[in-house]
Amino acid sequence: MNEIAFIESLSRRVKTGRGVRRGIGDDAAVLDYTRSKYMLFASDMLIEGTHFVKGTAPYRVGWKAMAVNMSDIAAMGGVPRFALVSLGVPAAGRAGFLRGFYRGALAVCRRFGVSIVGGDTNASRQAVADVSMIGEVEKDLVATRGGAKAGDLIFVTGCLGQGKKKHLDFVPRVREARDLVTKFRINSMMDISDGLSLDLSRLCRASRVGAVVYESLLPLGGDRTGVEEAVGYGEDFELLFTLSLKEARRLIKYMGKTGHPPVSMIGTVGPASKGLIIVGDEGKRRRLKPRGFLHF
Amino acid sequence: MNEIAFIESLSRRVKTGRGVRRGIGDDAAVLDYTRSKYMLFASDMLIEGTHFVKGTAPYRVGWKAMAVNMSDIAAMGGVPRFALVSLGVPAAGRAGFLRGFYRGALAVCRRFGVSIVGGDTNASRQAVADVSMIGEVEKDLVATRGGAKAGDLIFVTGCLGQGKKKHLDFVPRVREARDLVTKFRINSMMDISDGLSLDLSRLCRASRVGAVVYESLLPLGGDRTGVEEAVGYGEDFELLFTLSLKEARRLIKYMGKTGHPPVSMIGTVGPASKGLIIVGDEGKRRRLKPRGFLHF
Repeated sequence: MNEIAFIESLSRRVKTGRGVRRGIGDDAAVLDYTRSKYMLFASDMLIEGTHFVKGTAPYRVGWKAMAVNMSDIAAMGGVPRFALVSLGVPAAGRAGFLRGFYRGALAVCRRFGVSIVGGDTNASRQAVADVSMIGEVEKDLVATRGGAKAGDLIFVTGCLGQGKKKHLDFVPRVREARDLVTKFRINSMMDISDGLSLDLSRLCRASRVGAVVYESLLPLGGDRTGVEEAVGYGEDFELLFTLSLKEARRLIKYMGKTGHPPVSMIGTVGPASKGLIIVGDEGKRRRLKPRGFLHF
Repeated sequence: MNEIAFIESLSRRVKTGRGVRRGIGDDAAVLDYTRSKYMLFASDMLIEGTHFVKGTAPYRVGWKAMAVNMSDIAAMGGVPRFALVSLGVPAAGRAGFLRGFYRGALAVCRRFGVSIVGGDTNASRQAVADVSMIGEVEKDLVATRGGAKAGDLIFVTGCLGQGKKKHLDFVPRVREARDLVTKFRINSMMDISDGLSLDLSRLCRASRVGAVVYESLLPLGGDRTGVEEAVGYGEDFELLFTLSLKEARRLIKYMGKTGHPPVSMIGTVGPASKGLIIVGDEGKRRRLKPRGFLHF
C-alpha cells in the first residue's frame, strides 16, 4: 500500500464530527472558528535520513520544520498563527541541536508573525521534528485542492526543480498566497511539496478534473534544471493554483504592473476523462505520470 | 541542561503574540477562541525505545499517542475535539503497524468524540508518533498549573504507581476533569505524566507555593505498589489538583454520595518558603525531591 492509497483508505474510515469542514486529504484541515473565519490545522514531520541528512545544520532543520507548515497554511489561503514543536533529539550534541533548531524556527516565526506556544522534547536515536500549526482564513477566501474547474488555467509561483538546492532554506509563500486569495478568485490551490506531477495529480483527483501542462511554459530555475527535475522532484514548496480565464487575465495584468506575485501559467484544466497530459517542446503529447517524493 | 531548565530558558526567549493567553509551560497552550471559550492546543510525541519498547502492539501505541494528548486537554479542564497524527514508520511491517495504530487511535477517539482531521505519514528507521490536539474550555473553567494557593488541599484521581503496568492502556481522565471543573472551583490542575514528585514540584513552581504530602494518604494501587513507585514513577496520567478547604469539603461530600469522581486527598499547599515536604508514616518529615521521568 503506498501513501496515496493509505490516505484514501484512511479518510474513508475516519468519521469526523461537527465542526470539521474538511478533514484528511488537503494541505490543512478546515475547522469552524469565528463567525467570519475558519481555523486551519496542519502538521508535518521531518525525519533525519528521510527529509534531511544527518549532520544538517540544526538551524536549517528548525527553519524548514516551521516553514513547511506555514506553506501548508498558505496553500489554503490562510495566515499562520500558532505552532507547537515536538522534537526527538539524540543524546550526542543535544544542547547544540536544540539551540540551533530553535534559532532557525524562531527566525522564520518572527518573519511571519507566528507564536510558538508549546511542544514536547524527547530523547531519540534519530533526530525527528514535528511541528503542528494553527492558522486562520476568511470563510470566503479558503482555497482547497477540490475546486479546479475544466477551463481553468493552471499557475505556479516561482521556479520549479529547485527543491534539492533550497528545500532547507525556502521562504514559504505566505504573502504571495494571501495576495492571490485576497485579490483574485482562486478556484483551487495547494503547495508543491512532492513534485509537480504528483501534486497536480492530487489536485486533479480532488477536483475530479484532468489537466494539460506545457513543457515550454514550466518556469525552470537556472540553466541546469531540466523538465524532469521540474516535474518529478519534490520540495519546491511553490504554490500550484487554478483560476478562470477571466481571473487569469486580471492576474497577468496585475503582475505586469506590480511585478508581483511571481507567477507563471503552465497549462489548462480539462475534463477528468482526458487525464493528465504533458505537451513537449515539439508539440508531442504524452501522459504525465505522477512521480515524485512519496514518503513511503 | 535538563528538560526543565531547557523549557524555562525557551519560554523566556519565545515572544508570543496576540491571541496567546498562556504559552509554553502548561499541559496545553491557551489561545483566544470564541466569546465564551478558550482553545487548548497540545502535542505529545512517543518514540520507540523512549516511550514504548520495540515490538509493542501498534494498537496500544495508537491508543496511547491519542490518550496522552486527551489527558493534557483534560488537565486544563477542557474537552478534546480535533487531532492530527504525524507518524514515522519503519519499512518492515509498515502496513500492519499503520492498521493497528489507527485502530487503537480511533478507538479512544470514538470514546471521547475526537475527530482525526489529518496528519503526515513518513518512512523512518525508528517508529515515532506525534499527535497534536485542539480542545476547548469555557473561559471561567480553564485550569492551569499556576493557580494553587497556600491553604489549598491537594488531590489526585485514581491510584498512583500504576504507570509501568497501564501506561499503554490508560483511559484519559477527560470525564473526571470535566466533572471537577464544572462542579467545583479548582485552583490548579495538571496531569501526572512524569511522576508525582516531579509534577507536583512543577505545579508548585508555577504557582509559587510549597506543599506537604502525606505518605499514608497516597492512593497506592494494589499491595505490590510502594511509596517510591507512587512518587517517583511516571506515566500514571492521573489528575493532580488543588482547591480551597471549603471546596474540598464539598468535593468529599459529593464523592461520598455519588462515588465519583475517584479522588484522594494527599496533602496541603503551603508557602513557597517551606518547599516540598513528604511526611512518612511514622510522622517524620523529609524533603520530597523531584524525581521521575525526565525525557532527556
